[in-house]
Formats: sequence, C-alpha cells, structure tokens
Amino acid sequence: MLNKNIETFIGCGAEYDAASLVISGAPFDSTTSYRPGARFAPAAIRHESYGLETYSPYQRRDITEFSVFDSGDMELQFGAPSAALSDIEGRTAEILSDGKIPFLVGGEHLVTLGAVAAAVKKYPSLHIIQFDAHADLRDDYLGARLSHACVMRRCCDLTGDSRIHQFCIRSGDKSEFAFAERHTDMHPFGFDKLFETAAALREKNTPVYLTVDLDCLDPSSFPGTGTPEAGGVSFNELLEAILEVCGANIVGADINELSPMLDQSGASTALACKIMRETLIAILKNK
Amino acid sequence: MLNKNIETFIGCGAEYDAASLVISGAPFDSTTSYRPGARFAPAAIRHESYGLETYSPYQRRDITEFSVFDSGDMELQFGAPSAALSDIEGRTAEILSDGKIPFLVGGEHLVTLGAVAAAVKKYPSLHIIQFDAHADLRDDYLGARLSHACVMRRCCDLTGDSRIHQFCIRSGDKSEFAFAERHTDMHPFGFDKLFETAAALREKNTPVYLTVDLDCLDPSSFPGTGTPEAGGVSFNELLEAILEVCGANIVGADINELSPMLDQSGASTALACKIMRETLIAILKNK
Amino acid sequence: MLNKNIETFIGCGAEYDAASLVISGAPFDSTTSYRPGARFAPAAIRHESYGLETYSPYQRRDITEFSVFDSGDMELQFGAPSAALSDIEGRTAEILSDGKIPFLVGGEHLVTLGAVAAAVKKYPSLHIIQFDAHADLRDDYLGARLSHACVMRRCCDLTGDSRIHQFCIRSGDKSEFAFAERHTDMHPFGFDKLFETAAALREKNTPVYLTVDLDCLDPSSFPGTGTPEAGGVSFNELLEAILEVCGANIVGADINELSPMLDQSGASTALACKIMRETLIAILKNK
Amino acid sequence: MLNKNIETFIGCGAEYDAASLVISGAPFDSTTSYRPGARFAPAAIRHESYGLETYSPYQRRDITEFSVFDSGDMELQFGAPSAALSDIEGRTAEILSDGKIPFLVGGEHLVTLGAVAAAVKKYPSLHIIQFDAHADLRDDYLGARLSHACVMRRCCDLTGDSRIHQFCIRSGDKSEFAFAERHTDMHPFGFDKLFETAAALREKNTPVYLTVDLDCLDPSSFPGTGTPEAGGVSFNELLEAILEVCGANIVGADINELSPMLDQSGASTALACKIMRETLIAILKNK
Amino acid sequence: MLNKNIETFIGCGAEYDAASLVISGAPFDSTTSYRPGARFAPAAIRHESYGLETYSPYQRRDITEFSVFDSGDMELQFGAPSAALSDIEGRTAEILSDGKIPFLVGGEHLVTLGAVAAAVKKYPSLHIIQFDAHADLRDDYLGARLSHACVMRRCCDLTGDSRIHQFCIRSGDKSEFAFAERHTDMHPFGFDKLFETAAALREKNTPVYLTVDLDCLDPSSFPGTGTPEAGGVSFNELLEAILEVCGANIVGADINELSPMLDQSGASTALACKIMRETLIAILKNK
Amino acid sequence: MLNKNIETFIGCGAEYDAASLVISGAPFDSTTSYRPGARFAPAAIRHESYGLETYSPYQRRDITEFSVFDSGDMELQFGAPSAALSDIEGRTAEILSDGKIPFLVGGEHLVTLGAVAAAVKKYPSLHIIQFDAHADLRDDYLGARLSHACVMRRCCDLTGDSRIHQFCIRSGDKSEFAFAERHTDMHPFGFDKLFETAAALREKNTPVYLTVDLDCLDPSSFPGTGTPEAGGVSFNELLEAILEVCGANIVGADINELSPMLDQSGASTALACKIMRETLIAILKNK
Repeated sequence: MLNKNIETFIGCGAEYDAASLVISGAPFDSTTSYRPGARFAPAAIRHESYGLETYSPYQRRDITEFSVFDSGDMELQFGAPSAALSDIEGRTAEILSDGKIPFLVGGEHLVTLGAVAAAVKKYPSLHIIQFDAHADLRDDYLGARLSHACVMRRCCDLTGDSRIHQFCIRSGDKSEFAFAERHTDMHPFGFDKLFETAAALREKNTPVYLTVDLDCLDPSSFPGTGTPEAGGVSFNELLEAILEVCGANIVGADINELSPMLDQSGASTALACKIMRETLIAILKNK
Repeated sequence: MLNKNIETFIGCGAEYDAASLVISGAPFDSTTSYRPGARFAPAAIRHESYGLETYSPYQRRDITEFSVFDSGDMELQFGAPSAALSDIEGRTAEILSDGKIPFLVGGEHLVTLGAVAAAVKKYPSLHIIQFDAHADLRDDYLGARLSHACVMRRCCDLTGDSRIHQFCIRSGDKSEFAFAERHTDMHPFGFDKLFETAAALREKNTPVYLTVDLDCLDPSSFPGTGTPEAGGVSFNELLEAILEVCGANIVGADINELSPMLDQSGASTALACKIMRETLIAILKNK
Repeated sequence: MLNKNIETFIGCGAEYDAASLVISGAPFDSTTSYRPGARFAPAAIRHESYGLETYSPYQRRDITEFSVFDSGDMELQFGAPSAALSDIEGRTAEILSDGKIPFLVGGEHLVTLGAVAAAVKKYPSLHIIQFDAHADLRDDYLGARLSHACVMRRCCDLTGDSRIHQFCIRSGDKSEFAFAERHTDMHPFGFDKLFETAAALREKNTPVYLTVDLDCLDPSSFPGTGTPEAGGVSFNELLEAILEVCGANIVGADINELSPMLDQSGASTALACKIMRETLIAILKNK
Repeated sequence: MLNKNIETFIGCGAEYDAASLVISGAPFDSTTSYRPGARFAPAAIRHESYGLETYSPYQRRDITEFSVFDSGDMELQFGAPSAALSDIEGRTAEILSDGKIPFLVGGEHLVTLGAVAAAVKKYPSLHIIQFDAHADLRDDYLGARLSHACVMRRCCDLTGDSRIHQFCIRSGDKSEFAFAERHTDMHPFGFDKLFETAAALREKNTPVYLTVDLDCLDPSSFPGTGTPEAGGVSFNELLEAILEVCGANIVGADINELSPMLDQSGASTALACKIMRETLIAILKNK
Repeated sequence: MLNKNIETFIGCGAEYDAASLVISGAPFDSTTSYRPGARFAPAAIRHESYGLETYSPYQRRDITEFSVFDSGDMELQFGAPSAALSDIEGRTAEILSDGKIPFLVGGEHLVTLGAVAAAVKKYPSLHIIQFDAHADLRDDYLGARLSHACVMRRCCDLTGDSRIHQFCIRSGDKSEFAFAERHTDMHPFGFDKLFETAAALREKNTPVYLTVDLDCLDPSSFPGTGTPEAGGVSFNELLEAILEVCGANIVGADINELSPMLDQSGASTALACKIMRETLIAILKNK
Repeated sequence: MLNKNIETFIGCGAEYDAASLVISGAPFDSTTSYRPGARFAPAAIRHESYGLETYSPYQRRDITEFSVFDSGDMELQFGAPSAALSDIEGRTAEILSDGKIPFLVGGEHLVTLGAVAAAVKKYPSLHIIQFDAHADLRDDYLGARLSHACVMRRCCDLTGDSRIHQFCIRSGDKSEFAFAERHTDMHPFGFDKLFETAAALREKNTPVYLTVDLDCLDPSSFPGTGTPEAGGVSFNELLEAILEVCGANIVGADINELSPMLDQSGASTALACKIMRETLIAILKNK
C-alpha cells in the first residue's frame, strides 16, 4: 500500500514525542512595507532542502543523528498582525512546555515577537541575539506598532534594557540608533564583540533566543530578501558567528526574511537551507 | 530654472480645480492570501503609461482633450485593512464632494470597499458593475471579514440586494455561488447579458460604480496577477464591455489586482495602462 | 500534539483504501531534448493547487465529494529511462490491481509509456486519446527508442494499429505524419472529430487511457513548457474536450510536460492545476 | 578532422551560389524609444530554431526542399542609424543584384528602411505590405527622422502614395492616422481587406516587399517585444495572412521587433522561428 | 485639495534656488554595444530609493540636513549621441553657472562626456577620478568616436594628459592599456594609490569631477549592468574610496551603467541608491 | 559573395591543423539530479564571449596570439550516459592523437569522465586536479554509477589512488569524506596546499588533467549553477589558482556546470567566459 506524501526539512523526520527540537513555519508578511514575499520562505526552504546533504563537513555531524520534528506551516491570517502573533505565541508555548526547543521559520521579522513572547514567559531572564541589517527599533511605523520595523523595540518592551545584542546593523533612522545607545547592546556593521558576548552568556548559562534576519548577509550572498542592504557579512562569517553563539544555552531560535521569488537563481534559498542545517546541528550538538 | 519632477498617468496633467476626474493610487495588498505584489501597480501603471499614445483609435478621442488630475499614491498602513479603507474612503469622499469622479488604482480588490463606502453615501441608489474572475462573496476568509475574498460581500452589505452585477466569474466556493443566486446579479464566465444590463442602467440614469478586477481577463492576456484563473475574457471583449458600460452614469471606478512583478515581459502592465486610458476616455466623453 | 506536514493536491486527502483514484507524481525529464524542467511539475502542481478552489463552477461539483489519494512523487533514476519506466509501470499496476484509477502527473511525456504498459496488460482492448502539439511517433530520436519523441510510437507497439486517437498535432517530421496515416487516428491542429470519437468509445464502453500533453494548448495560454508550439487550442476548448472524453470509460490518465520554471508568472502552473481538478472531477463523477 | 561550427536557421544550409533566398541578421535597436533588446533577435531566432521541425504540416512542405543561405549578422554601428541603414541597403542590393530574395531579420523596425531603399531601386513599382501594431508614420520622433516610429513615413517618401498597405494598426498619434488617410492604405486593428489586397497585387504581378513587425500579434501570443500593444491578431490569423500574401510576387521580406529577453519563457522566440519557417516556405514554394 | 505627484530621490525635496546640488537623470544608452537598459536607471533609482533610510550610519549624517534638488530626467534623443551630449552639456552648464554642483545619473557611461565638457569649461584645471572596470580609452569603436567605449579618451582630449585617474580597471584591448601608460594615471584592478591620489588633489584644492561606473564593483555585488566583469571591488571598498575622494574639491559627479532589468532581485538598484546617498552626503558635508 | 556564419569562442578562429588546443562543447545534463540546464552552457559561453576582450590584463597576453580551434558542440544522446561518454571519449582521443590539447566545455560534471578516460589511456601516469564544491565520490547515486555525483569516483577507478587532488570541497555525504581520506588528496573548503601540490606536479612534469566545476565558486559570484553551495572561493582566488596550476604540464582540461538560464543577469555566463579565456591563455603560454 502506498504512503502519504509527507514533507519535512531534510533529515527532520522524527516523531513529535521523540523530538528535542520542533520546526514551525510562519508564512506571514503582511506588514512588509517594501517588497513582500517572505510568506513563501518556509515551504521553499523545506522543498529546496533536498538539494543539500544531511551531513555537515563544517561540524562533522549529520542532522540525522538528532531528532527533529517538522510541524509544517501555521495557517496565519493575512492582514491581522495581532492574531498572527497570538497564534505563533501559542504554538511556541506548547513546544516549550513540552520541553522542546522551538525553531521558527519566517516570514517577515515580526513573527519573532510571537516566539519571544512565549520564551520570555518561560525564561524571564532571556537574552536575545539578533543578526540583522536593520535595527528594527522604531516605536511605530506609519502608525503601526506591530510592524517588522518595530519588532525588536517590542521585544525590548518584553525583555527590558540591555538584553538584546544586535549585530550587523547598518540601517535605521537616527532615532533608532539613539534608542540603541540607551537600551540595547548594538554592534553596527559586523560581528565585532560577538565572541565576547557569546562567551559571557555561555559562562552564566543565560537562556538565549537567537533571531537571524538573513538580510544581515551581504546582498551578494543573499539577494533574495525584501530590503537588500549592501555592506553585510559573508556566509562564512555568519556561519562562524552562529557556531559560536550556539555554544550558549539556546532555548529558541528563528531565521526569517528570505523572499524566495526575488532570487530566481535559487541561491538565496539554498543558502537559507544550509544556514538552517548548520544552526540545527549546532544547537542540538550542544544540548 | 529647472522644474520639479512630476509624475502622472500619461496625458493627465490637469490642475485639481480644473479636473473632472481624479486618479488616486491605493498601493495596498496586505490581505492578499496568495501572491502579493498588487501594491506596486499604481506606480508601475503611471510609469509605463508613457509606452502608450494619448490617442485612442478605438474611440477616436485623445485623453488630452479632457481634464484629469493624478493625485499620486495614498500612504496606506500595511497590515491594517481597516485603517487603509478609512483613508481610501476619506479621499474618495473629498473628490466626490468636489463634484469630480474618483478613479482608484489598486492594489488588491479590497480597496474597492473604501471607494464604494464613500460613493454609496453620496448616491444611495448606487449600483455596482464588477468584472472579476472571483466572486469575492465570502462572509469571512480565515476569520477576516475585511479581505479581498470578501470585498463584494461587504459591498453588498452597503448597497443591499440585487445592486451588484457580476460578470466573468469563474471561481468561488459553493457557498459563494449560492449567495449570488439570492443576493447579486451574477453572470458567470463572460459578458452574457452585459449589454442588457448596461442599457437598463443607462435608461434609468442609475449611478454606477465600475470595478474592474483585471483577473477577469484570461491569463494569456494578463498573467501579471496574484491568482490567475484560466478561462477568462480577451482584451477586445473587455474593451467592448467597458465602452458599453461607460455609456451609463459612471460616478466612480477602479481597476485593481495588477501585480507587475509577476509578468516581467511588461505586457500585463501595458495592458492595464491601455484599459485605463480607454476607461478614462469612455467615462469622460459621456459626461 | 502537533501533526506531520502532509502535502496533497487540493481536496485529495483520502486514505488509500477508501480512494477510487490515486495520484502519482513522475518527476522525470531525462530524455527531454530541448529545455528540461518538467521534473519540477508534480511538486509545483501540488503546491500551487492551493490557489484554486475545490469547487468547479463548470461541473457544479466539488472535488471533496470524491475520494482521491495522493501518493506523492516516485523516486526515479535520472538518466535511466528504462529503469524509470519500469518503476512507473510497477506502481501503476499496483493501483490498477487494487481496482483504482491511476492518475499520473509528469514529467516529460515519456512517462506515459510506463502507465500505458500497465494499463494495456489489464485492458488488452485499451484505446488511447492523446492531446498533444507533437506527434511523438518517431521510431528513434538520435538513436534512442525510449524518448519523449517516440512515446506514442512505443505505445502503438503495445496497443496495435488504430487504437491511438491523436488531437491538436501540429509538429513532427514528414515520416511521423506518414506513419500516422497508416497506424493511428490523427486529427491535426485541433479537436476536429473529437466528439464523434468520444461518442463511439463511450457507446462500446471501450477502456480508454487519456494522456494530456499540456503543450496541446496554445503557448499564449501555456508558455511554461519545454517546446512551445504556436497554433494550439485555448483553455476553454481543452476543458470542453476533456469533459467530453471523460464521458467514456477512463481507466487511467495523465497530464504532462508542464515545466514550471519556464513561466515565472505562475499562470501555466495554475492552469495545469485547474485542468487537473476538472479532469479528476470529470472522471470520478462518471464512475 | 573536426569541422568548424557553422550556425544557420534550421534547414538553411545551402551555399550562397545555389541559394534563391538569403537571410541576413540586422541586430540594431538604437532608436528604440522604450525597451531595447531587439538587437538580440537574429542570434536567438537562429539558435532556437532547432526546437522546431523543418517540416510544415500547414503547407505540407519541408524547408530543406528549398535552397536558403544564412549569411549571419551584419556588424552595425550602434548609435548611428544612418550608417546602419547604409550597410543594410548595401547588403540587400548585393543580394538583389545576384537575383536572390533578401530576407532580413531585425532588430527594430527601422532596419526595414535599408532593405526597402535597395528594393525600390530595383523595383520602382514596389508595393509594401506591413503587419504592425503601430502606424510608424511620424515625420520625426523627438527630432529624429530616422526612428522606428518614422520608418513607414520614410518608406512612403521612397515609394510614393498609396503603395503601403498597413494592417493590424492600433496605435499612433492623431496625426499619423490623418496622414494614413491621405497617403497610405491603412486597415486598422486586423486583416480586414487583406485577401482583396493580396489578390489585386497577385493579379498584376506587382513586386511586393513584406514587412512583419511581430507586435502585430496580440501580446498574449507574443509578449517578447519592446512595446506590447493589446488587441492584436492571433498566430493562426497571422499565419493565414502570410500564406495569402506570399501568393503575390514577394521580392523581399523581413520580420522584426522580437526582443527575446523580454519573454523568458521562450515562447515569443519560438513563435518567431515558426513564422519565419512558414514565411520562407511560402515565398519559395510560389517561385 | 490634493497635491501633485512629485517624485525625487529620497530626501532630495529642496527647491532649486535653495539647493547646493542638483540631480539630473540622463536616460541614454544608444551606443551600448552589448546589453542595453541603462536608460531605465534614473527612474529606477529615484523610485527604489524609498527602500532606503535618509540617515547614513557610516557618516552619521542625514541627507535631509542638506539641500538637494532633483530635476528629473532629461528627454534625450535615442540614436543621436551628439545631440544627447549637447543637451547634457547644456543642463550641466546651467547648473554650474548657478553655483551649484551637478550630479548626473546615467544612462551609459558616454553621458559623462556631456557633463565633463561643461565642467572643464568652468574649471580648466579639472581632474577626473574614474572608478570603472573598463578603460574606455578607445579612439573609436566600430567607427564611432562618441561611444561608451571611447568616453574617457574623449574626456582626455578635453582635459589633456595626466588629468584622469583611473581605478579598478580590468578590461580593455592592448592598445588602451598602452594609451593609459602614456596619457592617464591608471591603477588597474583596485584602489591601489587611491588615498595618495586623493590626498594630493585635496592639498592643492584641485577641482575634481568624480565619475563612478558602477561596474567597477564585482558582479557578485552588482550583477545589474550591461557588461559584468568579474574581479571587481566590494561595496565596502567602493564606499571607503568614495568617502576618501569626496574630501577633495568635488565640482561635479555622476554614477552610471546600472541596468535595473538585468538584476531582477533589485539588489543592484538598491546598492546604487545607497552609493548615491553616501556620495551626496560626502560631497555636501565637505562643502 | 557573403560568408557562412561561423561561431567560435572569441579569438579562437584557427584552423584545426594549425591549432594546438581544441575546444569541444558537451551539452549533456541528463543525470543532473536537481536543476538541469548545464546543457545550454557551451552555446551560451561561445555566444556571450563577445562581451569580453581577447586581451588579458592579468597575464598581459592576448588569446589571438595562440591558435585555438573551436569544434562546436557534440550531438550527445539525452538520457543515455554511457553513449554520451563514449562519444566524448572518442572525440577527445582523436584530438589527443593529433597532438593537441582537448578542452571540454560541459554540460554536467559527468562529461569529465569521457575526457579523462581518453587522457588516461594516452598518459597512464595522469593526475587530476579538481576544483569543486562537491566531492562527487559516491559509488552510486540512486542506483546509477554513471552520475554527476559519482564522476570522480569513476575517475579514481581509472587513475588509481592518490592521483586526484580535490580543492574547495564543502559538500558530500559522510561516506564520501571517508573515501577521500583513503583514496584521494582532498583539501576541503578552499585552496589550502594548492601551491605546494602544483609545484610538486610541475617539478616532475606529471601530466595533469584540470577539471573546474564552476560551483567551486561562491554562489555570490556564480549563482548560475544547478546546486549552488554557499561558502566557496572568489573569482580572484579561482583565477590565481588556475594560473598556478597551469604552470604544470596540462594535457587536458574542462570547465563545467554553468547553467546559464539560472542566472538571468548574465553575470555567471560572463564569469565562465572570463575563466575560460584565462585558462586557455595560461595553458597555451606555458607550452
């Protein structure tokens, strides 16, 4: 008898109960102010992951050594950021309460807020490490407070000051940089002080949420994103940074802002798959 | 001394006070459930209109014979359908109260609701003629009542039964077709009864709002739209229908659902420009 | 507890045992001589089918009224036509022996040979109805006898003369047209005599395999195919033809030769989804 | 010993001396006012012609039955219309003086002027049949008299009044349509009176130059052109018109305005190849 | 009352009289010998600049602190390089005579010649700094002396020897490199000696015209150009070089050779916008 | 009299007898497991090479100083790897036996096996230098032993252990890396030990076959390939490595895995042309 057609990220075919990490897709991009399309990322990443191997020559580990469950995409209401965030928070809370690590695949960067809201409830001392081209620290954007351009500001509302460590930032208005000076730990342009930051968090076993806005990469490596911002980091730099950070106590993570249709060569989607494989292995091998 | 760089739809350079028709762009597509991008249509149409002539050999009139003002695009909040509709209604009401005809360029089809809300206040006996592949008659879509998939249902809430004349419809769920049988005047697939309908409205001088969802066209003519639905009408059929309908008392109109990035040949945008030129001339020559 | 991520063609979520029709993807295009890419069609059709409704206003039936199982894609060896055809024949035979109708989604047209090989064993009096721009009647192509350009010639080897009814053919070398005069029932360019052919088969309850090479369509409607051939039929003509043919005793069917990456507007894939929905409903409502 | 790599249009491998028709590419598009790219057409047509068969089921003839020489592309100076036209006129005159039929592959429509200049010198009673969306009858365009938008006006300067028969025209400014009424034989929109016109020319054995601006086709069939103009003819209509016209005494011909990069599906280039094959056979079978 | 739709580069909304710098678009690419499309760059840059912020974290300045006027695009005659250059020289001279800095946005690189012709009249001791992959030093190209491939040779005719400082050059024929040894100051491949060159010019307060052919960048960062040439500089290297050069006395500048349609991800256009913002701020903050 | 249209790689117009190097295209990609299209590379490289100069400023030599013959593309049977390899081996053997250097342009990487099979017969002590993202060391792939994923394993069968020097490898399954430890000389990720390896081969005058899978490059430089793998080398690094290796006794070479349609900017094809020009010059200047 023939089997049903199950689609997962490559090598992530575990059952829910056995899994130590759970992938969820958040195909939402309604507040994207420029070029939408991040909604297509979770399905594209899952589908294109089969162009990858399961083995990482960087970490000399294979993702099939670990138990990962891929729960597919959430059905989120377009045009209703508040409802969408509530759904994301709900699923994330369920995964956390089952003792598993939630791994979210955006979607626009706003989706991070739903996952962080759940994580900070379980881990009140949560720190956030953000890799991103944009500060995302506006208090509102065209009047909206739930916008991709405000997501880290809203996270800061939840975590309090000095808990968000921002790297690779090279775009924002003047007020966002001013806010960062007072409220976050911002390292503009690249990964300056990344190793020190990671080491400090690791030593104290601080619970860390890692959010990777893939536009932290230079558009030469990653053109498939809504707001490409020249002057970013290379794939090798990002990989090294992720491996370093995952030595800390990662309690949740996401990657976001791939817009697959904007890079019809497929190279951006393939890179996102590879970053995801490496991040999953790095988180899991350290548990 | 050099001049500022003013961009309008071709041949539409009148001053506001002198104009009998006013163009407004509504670059909104936040509730689009499938492939977004209609937000880019107003700017693309304005820009690409310069590949057209101002003269219509079909109507043997030139758009420069009339006075049209192009007010540019509204700045609408992404992810906030209610606020966006309110802004559209406001601008439409202003234009109507100045005795001019509002002509809206979407954006997704939901934007029509803002314009109709203003029009029905001024013209309580308003009828609507809709050219569209999709019925757009759901009561809600994934829980949202302000969605492109519900826009004509919401218009029906405003106009009451039997005031909406639907043509070219070839997609919807079973309940939408059932609703249409009881509440609207639906003519599926093509323009069957279009001439009779237009004639009846013309005779009674009924105020008519014309909404053209460009996906009424067959995707062979118009692939540049979020949800292409095979089996539609040709350009010549649509042109003939518009010329016929514009013999009635048109008090407002829109075209919507062009998604320019989805047709990189530019043919869909060029067609939208031509339909817009012909519609503008047809409305204005009958005033 | 969260569920696994199951992907099917829209509305085709039945269990295997309950199903009367079984969908299989055949992502194979190794003998394509011009532009490959049909291998991506089954996954694209399944994924993009969610832009459709399950309800057909043409047939006033909903695909959810029937029981269809989607078995996903076969894992076929690239560069090995003989092995791939053997795998397709094996799966088709299994479905037929369980009393269900096999519905194959190519891939290049060669995949039809595997399904026909199984069907003709169960139904020795099998006829084939082929909609196609190309005759596909070469005895070999650059020395290969298992090639997309030879597929109907190989089918003819299995069924014997006068059993293949070819429509829409408008390309081939001189020898193929000569072969057709002696061995097949060819109707070039369009659907001339389609209704008579279908009626005759229906009357005798002849078992019929329907193979739809989507390049029978005019490239204006369906540019997303490896060898677009101008002068084909329209969507409405193809739909009407399929509805007519499905009144006969269809024992197996396929659609093939969509190459999704060649039409980046998505209109070709959307059309293929719609033709597939209509064909599934038409086959099943007549059982 | 290995052979040199010779590229010709499919089936056109004759030697120059033996040939009755000579193909020349004119990769020029410097006066294109909107979207350039027609310069790439001759190479693309030659290359993609191998997706076609040499056999025409429409005419039941094979292009290999005739002797055609493909002389490759001329090296024309970009940005220098006058020099480019002089080169085209020179090569055309050489072909004509050798008693062969020149067949030009544009490039933008301006290239026709070079070929017509040579043809009208040999055949002072030359008539021109033009299939085109645009009248091309301006006296100047932004000050330039050698522009694609003026090409038929310049031809009219050479042939005199009433010698140019224009079909499918659906774009131009008011003055061009006025000029046509006095000086050319214009049939707007389609092929109305085409058969009568062709019959009259055939009866008198008038020497005819046929110029096919492929944008006469509807953009649904032919999106790959710089200025797509909705409302054109279908492939089948154009084919029928060409077969009819080629019954007259064709002394030279061209096809132009394919811009291959604008239709990345390849369907426009494939159509141009097919029209070229059919035109070549139709001209040659009537000699 | 509604306002007219004015389009400018982001943050450049000053009145002409108040402005110290004036932007002009030069949408000309008629001599492009390979892939045209640079004509679309000025409109694309203006439009896409709204994906940027007005604030530069690199220079910690905001473009709105300065007064820039955007005069829109010149209407240049295609196919007539001499006329186009004359128009560019005229507008540049007007801006210079009003005591403002002209900033030209190409178009192909030939447009620089018009601006330099005006600048060298006002500043006879003018030096030029050129960032470019190509030497552009041919005396003629296929017979044309006004060609993108000859532009710096023509500039050298105007400035005299040793006044042109060429960086990043990695393409040319043998004779161009030989010419450079005798007549220009060429630094192949990268920015070797850039700082020394800029320092020397700054010390003497030499008037400098800066021309940035964006293909100086590596195609990984900037694929959207007609003749991509591997082996170029990175965005960060180019940015640093521009900031350095703008410490000198810049009296005019341009960026050119973006061809937006060739990079459909939008990353090339976004990079051009960012380089333009940084260059504008760098020039203006040093005045 | 007009000439036939001969197409060669730029500057490679020598006669066969005079040539010291012979280019052959191998347009084959039937075993490509992911995204096909490498079959289009040889024609694209030949066509687009005219955007390059013949002069190399890196080596200060011009390709026209050498004698290269371009024999065009082989006509290889799709779907029949064994037959295709046999044809490639045959042509390569012919070139080698005439005392010339064979230079193959793929196609997928499997084509290398045909050329190596011929080379190892003439040069039993042959070593291979491979630049590649993928190890290509599987014993079979989905059951096939003649697959792009197995090509270096098959080469290893021919050369014996320790003769294959692999650089830039960053993808493979665990077993491939284990095989490499025992049987090949693998240097993962980059060009570590490249200079030492080249020096040792040069000193012993070992016959070397150089195979460049262009996906060794980072996808930022080279997105136009079927399986882009982030983390590769830059153009400048690859160029330097090739110049170094070509100091050894190169007896045959190939470049492969460009898939031109996947990078519609043309930058990948342009880079492949430039790498080919530099490799040709580097091989020939050292003879």
